[in-house]
Amino acid sequence: MNGKLRTVHVGLGPIGRKILKAGVSAGICEPVACADIAPEIAGVSIRSVFDEQQLPDVMVCGDLQEALEQADEVGADLAVVCTGSRLEAIEPQLTSVLERGLCCISTCEELIFPWLRAATVADRLDEVAVRNEVALTGAGVNPGFVLDLLPFVLTRVCERTQSVSAGRYVDATRRRQQLQAKIGTGMEPDDFRELASQGKIGHVGLAESAALLADSLGWPWDEFEETIDPVIAEESISSEYFTVAAGQVRGQHQRLTMGKVQLELIMALGEEERDEIRVEGVPPVHAIIHGGIHGDTATSGAVINFMWPLVNAEPGLRTVTEIPLG
Amino acid sequence: MNGKLRTVHVGLGPIGRKILKAGVSAGICEPVACADIAPEIAGVSIRSVFDEQQLPDVMVCGDLQEALEQADEVGADLAVVCTGSRLEAIEPQLTSVLERGLCCISTCEELIFPWLRAATVADRLDEVAVRNEVALTGAGVNPGFVLDLLPFVLTRVCERTQSVSAGRYVDATRRRQQLQAKIGTGMEPDDFRELASQGKIGHVGLAESAALLADSLGWPWDEFEETIDPVIAEESISSEYFTVAAGQVRGQHQRLTMGKVQLELIMALGEEERDEIRVEGVPPVHAIIHGGIHGDTATSGAVINFMWPLVNAEPGLRTVTEIPLG
Repeated sequence: MNGKLRTVHVGLGPIGRKILKAGVSAGICEPVACADIAPEIAGVSIRSVFDEQQLPDVMVCGDLQEALEQADEVGADLAVVCTGSRLEAIEPQLTSVLERGLCCISTCEELIFPWLRAATVADRLDEVAVRNEVALTGAGVNPGFVLDLLPFVLTRVCERTQSVSAGRYVDATRRRQQLQAKIGTGMEPDDFRELASQGKIGHVGLAESAALLADSLGWPWDEFEETIDPVIAEESISSEYFTVAAGQVRGQHQRLTMGKVQLELIMALGEEERDEIRVEGVPPVHAIIHGGIHGDTATSGAVINFMWPLVNAEPGLRTVTEIPLG
Repeated sequence: MNGKLRTVHVGLGPIGRKILKAGVSAGICEPVACADIAPEIAGVSIRSVFDEQQLPDVMVCGDLQEALEQADEVGADLAVVCTGSRLEAIEPQLTSVLERGLCCISTCEELIFPWLRAATVADRLDEVAVRNEVALTGAGVNPGFVLDLLPFVLTRVCERTQSVSAGRYVDATRRRQQLQAKIGTGMEPDDFRELASQGKIGHVGLAESAALLADSLGWPWDEFEETIDPVIAEESISSEYFTVAAGQVRGQHQRLTMGKVQLELIMALGEEERDEIRVEGVPPVHAIIHGGIHGDTATSGAVINFMWPLVNAEPGLRTVTEIPLG
């Protein structure tokens, strides 16, 4: 078993906190510095933030540079960055981390395959990582596992792979309020379509998953079509946070086609949870994960499990399919 | 996409032939030498052996050293060795291949995790591979994928993994006659038990799968219990090659427990085909591959898909969990 990594935690929202807790519990992380912009936790020890006296007594810095200086003083191996979905927005943070000689793992959805929508930023980050002899990757469950890494792994037994389709079906009643709101729960269908047409609704990362999968299979990833439709409640349904009348929106149905890759994501109240992957190939492979893989917990799991492999990986900007898992 | 590897094919039994054909079809292999001990194909071009005029005109050598000299002359990257299940028996072949500076991939079941039953041989092979700056691995579908690599990959989303159980259920009517015979088809239950108690029946590799999985998870793998029981036909059942009366054996049921890893393998006429993996963890993961992953074809698929990753891997004796997949 590997020992502990000295970790810097950047962004202590719900996912950032889960990763810190899970990483410490698993004996993978020893937090040595933390940064978050929320004023209510700046200057507060993570022991108080998490109400766990067994955590190391590390103060949350309101400023990233301050946290990185602190990490520099005590020595650190890796930073976890959970501050945003768009790569361009978090590039300065990633650059700062890499320039301190820290490996970096992030839940930023675009970082799962950054050449798709932020190629220039990706090239810059790769250059910074290589120069500082550290590795950088995006990790998570979706994108990062269910619709990209796992389907790719399943194709590894095929003499030939003709096409891959994968779907994720999430019962949003079991998820955070923020996610339920984000998928349009309780909206009128026309309002949903209006927001979707403005790009204001929809899961970030489906195209990144498709591109990572296609690229790993040696297929082109430069063109794709994506649709987002409301899932309409046939009868009234409610969650802890929302009540949806029949005819209103209970969630979203997103579909993406990129050549021989087809992905589908339904996140809706009352949806039957499962993940499903079909490889058309020789031999064909049809896998179902019954009950699905729980989103937030699995993201945190993926991030902590990729930490050691990342530290041992080739320097540069890497995808999760390129990193040895074991 | 990667280009072609110049390959040496050692062992042209059913699996060795499938690998050669699939590797050429996929554009991964360019055979430059072949060796097999069967006198009827020694000195014959693989064009005739396979009855495929589009294959390169490579003559099958009856002697491995002769094939390796031929490979040396034209230059080669990698050898595929499909000559046996026991590592000790094929060590001289692997050593010869590695000493010529060729990477080596083999379907030898014990090589999936050779430290379990042939640790001294494994250490010697690792030393030879490192000294010659090439990598060596065992690959296949079982062992090598369904009950080891794939369960390990599924645990990569778990914050904590408490235990893993995995089962493979194979309908032997769909497999080669040799496999149907090997699993005791048509025997009387007592004869089966007698052979099983002498170690003359049973799939090689279940313990290797468990050890690879356990080791990849940082769990001990030095102790295990294994049982092999006959699967008794409740009514008569037949295949292309066998007719089994009610009360006779239609196949084998093998179970293995290694600490927190439990594996099960049923290979029997009329068994419902599937592979099933359960990870008890946070989150739990329950995956079923409906219809299973076809054995021979998937072994050939796994071997050809691991060729390029192996050539790019760190020198030495590697497991499939340590090699970057993409």
